[in-house]
Amino acid sequence: MSANGRFLRACRCEPVDRVPVWIMRQAGRYLPEYRALRAKHDFLALCTTPELAAEATMQPIRRFPLDAAILFSDILIPAAAMGCPVTFAPGPQFERPICTAKDLDALHVPDPTKETGFAMEAIRILKRELGEGVPLIGFAGAPVTLATYMVEGGSSKQFDGLRRLLAEAPEVARRLLELLTRTTTDYLAAQIEAGADAVQLFDTWAGLLSPLDYETHAVPGLRRITGALRRYRVPIIYYVNGGGALLERMRTIGADVIGVDWRTPLDGARRTLGSKIAVQGNLDPCSLYAPPEEIERRVTWVLAEAGPSPGHIFNLGHGILPETPVEHVHAMIEAVHRHGRRGDTP
Amino acid sequence: MSANGRFLRACRCEPVDRVPVWIMRQAGRYLPEYRALRAKHDFLALCTTPELAAEATMQPIRRFPLDAAILFSDILIPAAAMGCPVTFAPGPQFERPICTAKDLDALHVPDPTKETGFAMEAIRILKRELGEGVPLIGFAGAPVTLATYMVEGGSSKQFDGLRRLLAEAPEVARRLLELLTRTTTDYLAAQIEAGADAVQLFDTWAGLLSPLDYETHAVPGLRRITGALRRYRVPIIYYVNGGGALLERMRTIGADVIGVDWRTPLDGARRTLGSKIAVQGNLDPCSLYAPPEEIERRVTWVLAEAGPSPGHIFNLGHGILPETPVEHVHAMIEAVHRHGRRGDTP
Repeated sequence: MSANGRFLRACRCEPVDRVPVWIMRQAGRYLPEYRALRAKHDFLALCTTPELAAEATMQPIRRFPLDAAILFSDILIPAAAMGCPVTFAPGPQFERPICTAKDLDALHVPDPTKETGFAMEAIRILKRELGEGVPLIGFAGAPVTLATYMVEGGSSKQFDGLRRLLAEAPEVARRLLELLTRTTTDYLAAQIEAGADAVQLFDTWAGLLSPLDYETHAVPGLRRITGALRRYRVPIIYYVNGGGALLERMRTIGADVIGVDWRTPLDGARRTLGSKIAVQGNLDPCSLYAPPEEIERRVTWVLAEAGPSPGHIFNLGHGILPETPVEHVHAMIEAVHRHGRRGDTP
Repeated sequence: MSANGRFLRACRCEPVDRVPVWIMRQAGRYLPEYRALRAKHDFLALCTTPELAAEATMQPIRRFPLDAAILFSDILIPAAAMGCPVTFAPGPQFERPICTAKDLDALHVPDPTKETGFAMEAIRILKRELGEGVPLIGFAGAPVTLATYMVEGGSSKQFDGLRRLLAEAPEVARRLLELLTRTTTDYLAAQIEAGADAVQLFDTWAGLLSPLDYETHAVPGLRRITGALRRYRVPIIYYVNGGGALLERMRTIGADVIGVDWRTPLDGARRTLGSKIAVQGNLDPCSLYAPPEEIERRVTWVLAEAGPSPGHIFNLGHGILPETPVEHVHAMIEAVHRHGRRGDTP
C-alpha cells in the first residue's frame, strides 16, 4: 500500500496495512538541513518563495518514511494578505493589532491565487516532486486561532485578547471572525485546486474558549468552511490544542479527522467522536526527549489507546520541538511501523 | 448564615442559604488600594512581612461581601525556602533552575514555622481581624506545579521543561517531586495549625501533563498530602487550570472540593466527581470585561451548569485579571447573591 493510499484511507476510516504517520511541524528547526536553509533565508522568504517552501516541505520526506508531506508555510500568511502585516522575530508580531471596528476597515478577503499565489505555486511544484506516492496536506489556521493572534498582536503567555474582545465588543469580534471564515475557505479551496490531497485546519488556540464561546463563535464558521470544501471530496483534518472538553462540539463541525493534543485520551476521543470520524495524534512532543526504548513504549501506549479499529493517523499531540534529536524521530517512526499493524488490512 | 458557615458547609456538600463566592487572586492589581500598597513595597516584601500580607489579604474583604479570605502570598515562597531562591520582575525568575541530580543536593525540606514563619504569623493576625465571620483559606502550590516552575526557571510560554525532564531524567524529576510533596505537606499543616480554616492546593500547570503522566507522577504525591492533612478535618480544595481531561483521576486524590477552570463544563465535572465532592468555579475571568448585564447573564449560566444540588462554590475559572474594572466585580458578586439561592437551605 502506498503512503498516499494508506493516509487517505485512514482519513476515511477505511482499513489499512498499518497506521500512517506524519509529524506536525515536520519541516522545522530540529532538522540540520532546515537550519542550513534558514541560515540563508529568513522565515518569511521560505514561506513566500515557492521553490524554497517546496524544498523545506521535501526535507523530512527525503529523510524519513513518512506517510504524508505538509506544505511548508505559516498560519498567519493569509492574515498578512488580508491587510494585517506580520513579521517574525522569531515569534509573530503584527504591525497593527485588531482592537476596534475601525481596524477592521483596513482588512479585505484576499484572492488566494493572486495574493498568496506563492503557496499555490509551491503546491504545484510539490505535486510534481512527490508524484503518486506521498500525499500532500495543505493547511490554514482556523478563524478563532487567527483572530487570537490578530487581536493579541503577537505571541503571548495568556492569549486572552480575543476572549476580552468577545466580552467587551462582541460585534467587532464577530465581524473579524466572519472575514476570517471567508478568507480561510477561499485559501483552502485554492490549495485543493492547486493539488493538495487533504487539508488541515489548525485551531491551536480554540482550547482557550469556554465550551459556550466555542459553540457560539467557533462552530458556525467551521461548519461553513467544511461545507464549502465538501464538494472537493478531500479529507479535512481539524486540530485543536487543549481541546479535550470541546470534543462533543467538534464532532458536529463536519471534519473527517479530528487531531487531538497529548492531554486528550484517544480512547475517550474515539468514544465521543464515533466510528465515522478518524482521530490523529497524540504522542506528547516531549516524549521524543526520552531514550529510544522509552519512545517505543510510549508509541505502543498511543496505539493501544487508539484501539484496533481503522481511522487512526499517528502524530504528535503538538508540533515537534526544535531540540528533538533526529535519531529519536527515526525511533518513533520505526516503532509505529513495528507496532501499528492491526490485522485489519483490506 | 455567616460566610464562614456558608463556605465550610458548601465545601462539605451540605445545604446552604446561597452559593458562597470568593475570587482567585482577589487581593491583586485590579484593586487601587493594592496598587497603592505595591507602590510602597515590592511583591516579596508583601509576602514575607506578616502585617503587609495581612493588609493585602483584608483589602478585598473590606470592599466586597466575599464568603472567604485567602492568605496573600505566592506559591513559590516554599520553593525559595527549600533553597531555590526566586525573584519577581514581575514574573518569577529562579536563580538556579533544577536541571540535574546535583541541583537537588542544594535543596532541603524546610521547617515551615521557622523558614516561612512570616506566613504563619500573617495567618494569626488575620484570624484575629476576621473573627468568626469570614473563613481564611491557606494555600500552597502542588508539587507538579512547583516543579514546573523550578525546572523551567521562570515563567514560559510552553512550560515543557518538567515533561522533558520526566522523559530524559525521570529519576531527577521523581526526587524533586518527592521533596516538594514533603515540603507542601508540612507547609499546609503549619498553616492549618496557625488557624487556616481550609486550604487550597494550586496545581495550575498539571493540565500540561498527559493523563498517564498525571496518574504516574502527580496523583501519588497528592494522595500523600491529602492523607496527611486529613486529621485536621479542614476542607481541602484542589485546583487545576485546563485539567478537564484529568477529572476522573482528580476524583481519587482525596480532595473535598475540585476547582475547575472556565473551559471545563461544571455539569460534566459534577457527573464525573459525584455528589460527595464539591466543585468550585468557573466563570471565565475575561467575562468581567463585559458590561454588568452580560456579567449577570454569564453568572446565571455558571449557576445553571453547577445545578441545584449543594456543593458549589462560585469563583472564577482562573485568577482575576489586573485590568478588571472594580465595579464589574461588584456586579458579579451581586449576581451570585441574586441568583445563587437554591431553595436547599438547611
